[in-house]
Amino acid sequence: MARINEHYRKLSAGYLFPEIGRRVRAFSEAHPEASVIRLGIGDVTLPLAPAIVDALRLASIEMGSAEGFRGYGPENGYDFLLDAIREHDYRARGVEVAADEIFVSDGSKQDSGNIQEIFGQSCTFAVTDPVYPVYVDTNVMAGRTGAADAQGRYAGITYLPGTEANGFVPDPPGRPVEIAYLCSPNNPTGAVMSRAQLETWVAWARAHDAVLIFDAAYDAFISDPALPRSIYEIEGARACAIEMRSFSKRAGFTGVRCAYTVIPGELTGSTASGERVPLRSLWSRRHATKFNSVPYIIQRAAAAVYTPEGRKQTSEQVGYYMANAQTLRRGLGAAGFTCTGGEHAPYVWVRTPQGLSSWECFDRLLSRAHVVCTPGSGFGAAGEGYFRISAFNSRENVEEAIDRIRRAFAR
Amino acid sequence: MARINEHYRKLSAGYLFPEIGRRVRAFSEAHPEASVIRLGIGDVTLPLAPAIVDALRLASIEMGSAEGFRGYGPENGYDFLLDAIREHDYRARGVEVAADEIFVSDGSKQDSGNIQEIFGQSCTFAVTDPVYPVYVDTNVMAGRTGAADAQGRYAGITYLPGTEANGFVPDPPGRPVEIAYLCSPNNPTGAVMSRAQLETWVAWARAHDAVLIFDAAYDAFISDPALPRSIYEIEGARACAIEMRSFSKRAGFTGVRCAYTVIPGELTGSTASGERVPLRSLWSRRHATKFNSVPYIIQRAAAAVYTPEGRKQTSEQVGYYMANAQTLRRGLGAAGFTCTGGEHAPYVWVRTPQGLSSWECFDRLLSRAHVVCTPGSGFGAAGEGYFRISAFNSRENVEEAIDRIRRAFAR
Repeated sequence: MARINEHYRKLSAGYLFPEIGRRVRAFSEAHPEASVIRLGIGDVTLPLAPAIVDALRLASIEMGSAEGFRGYGPENGYDFLLDAIREHDYRARGVEVAADEIFVSDGSKQDSGNIQEIFGQSCTFAVTDPVYPVYVDTNVMAGRTGAADAQGRYAGITYLPGTEANGFVPDPPGRPVEIAYLCSPNNPTGAVMSRAQLETWVAWARAHDAVLIFDAAYDAFISDPALPRSIYEIEGARACAIEMRSFSKRAGFTGVRCAYTVIPGELTGSTASGERVPLRSLWSRRHATKFNSVPYIIQRAAAAVYTPEGRKQTSEQVGYYMANAQTLRRGLGAAGFTCTGGEHAPYVWVRTPQGLSSWECFDRLLSRAHVVCTPGSGFGAAGEGYFRISAFNSRENVEEAIDRIRRAFAR
Repeated sequence: MARINEHYRKLSAGYLFPEIGRRVRAFSEAHPEASVIRLGIGDVTLPLAPAIVDALRLASIEMGSAEGFRGYGPENGYDFLLDAIREHDYRARGVEVAADEIFVSDGSKQDSGNIQEIFGQSCTFAVTDPVYPVYVDTNVMAGRTGAADAQGRYAGITYLPGTEANGFVPDPPGRPVEIAYLCSPNNPTGAVMSRAQLETWVAWARAHDAVLIFDAAYDAFISDPALPRSIYEIEGARACAIEMRSFSKRAGFTGVRCAYTVIPGELTGSTASGERVPLRSLWSRRHATKFNSVPYIIQRAAAAVYTPEGRKQTSEQVGYYMANAQTLRRGLGAAGFTCTGGEHAPYVWVRTPQGLSSWECFDRLLSRAHVVCTPGSGFGAAGEGYFRISAFNSRENVEEAIDRIRRAFAR
């Protein structure tokens, strides 16, 4: 009798986005004439930039030649990509990261879900609330929590509510925890952490010997150059923070799959007996044992993002989405909705009108406006009473969606 | 103080292949003039087949157009690939597999390493010995074993030695275990399981309510059409077996990354209270939470493997490697080595001469013949006294390697 991992049964429901997909499919089957505008799942819509397509095409041809063929790649990524990351994502902002501190992967979802494996089973951790579900669900699966309550809060997790009062950037917890997950620019609220807020978190982590898992998947959407893009721009962060970055949103790689995680050499965890162990060595062992690097052609495509053409083309795409975000925020605001986010992130976070619950609002948006949003409560109890709307769509669809939403909620 | 996962510290050494890489690099740096022939890691060497390159190229261009762009894909894989798998890998051999029983992934290494997550922490399991290290190491990391002994055998694992006496295909264990990992054609021994042997294993699993994890990553190398390629060709296997297949070796995808896992709908595990739970639902939840599907262009490339040109071109590549395997087996045999495997697998399994240990033989092959093999003991205690040599190289290199090995070991 093969025993299953019963921790999976604590998961309150299906993973959020498949659940949204199911409801949208059911609606579309019942109403085949409805033209549904999807502003739910944060999936990019613009085609790959020409510089990226060229890189894919050339690398594909290369792989078909005896001289150019590449089998298994270096475990952490090819040097051409590691060098580009070091130069453009870090050195350009005054931060030095070594090549062997960078681990190229097939997604920040994967990295942020897998990183918990290198920590002890009894590790305590904090998440902001609302939160990207992967941080929570992967810890539930690993058995680091108890059961969920009626609001979906799991016993044993320290939740830090993001509220209108704190601008959706919670302070560090009052009680000690070993790990804290942070995401800035934030998914789902679109809030961005200021330098001072990041400094507060780093100081807290240093004081409590905690590890910050800093998910910067949306860093490209930061429009104020004074705001830190990397947590390593904060003094002392190398000793307490793991950082994750992604090509998904900055370069339209949601269907191409490339990301990376940085673990500085001096960042350590502890054994029960107090011995310090570099976290990088543990992640490196995991990477070598459970992963087989990103396809060569995909790494070439990722490197093309850093070429002059690639940077120009992808920043135009980011600009397009950010103009959408502004349109959404203004349009919904003018229609009477209370909105935040959307200034340094492709997400606008909207208070549900008329006291509706998040899912009630989702269903009403879908059935009356034929617009898909993401219910805030899907991101955690503190997300109840909000919905997330994404800027990833065409300008026309975004404007049409605003119009439909306005009409659907007209009193 | 963030506590680490101390189970990682039980791992006896680095993952095998990086260790080989380190020794080869050290040798090459000390002897830059030496031309090293790599028959160690099982990495393909022929360039991608034209049909695959075309598919990659066309899909790349498609991703650059507004109509053709695809973001996040369906979690389990695109229908065009699932349909091709069902038709060519299964229906052609009289086996029906449903689309929602197939999970496309970025590698069988990943799948065979991750599958243990859906089982309980206390699950008992068996591996054949020698064995692909990933099955063992990922369970060690998850805490399902005790410490390793001097031979590298972990407490709590049931090892089933493959020996010359049993033709490197061990019988099922005498004591009950909940999970058994099987690999056929076998990595590293090259042994293939007969229909009768598979039937014995399936009967055992049914009798003990155990789950077989059947790794068929090398099925394309089976040269006898009467031998089963899928465990589902055995009556009753759907109720007890998970199967994994890969494009890595059959189509040169080691640097392209695509594979899949099949979990039949009727296959269940059990809770502590005896409730039966479909394993497919657990894997589906894991897949949705910790993975984000394989790049669209890579799935197009995998589907191209099943087109008439793709099948012809990739089977010619397999044929080329298999001719190498035959050359290796005959050449080393004629030189006095005792060899098995290489008939239905790209690996020849060779007894070390002169009573050398596996690593001694590895070092001698490297220093005297400038040939890289894989030390048998790296695959487990029962691999001591053997080395694995791979057919993945050019014909010229294979012939040159045989010649050098013969001279290096001449008495």
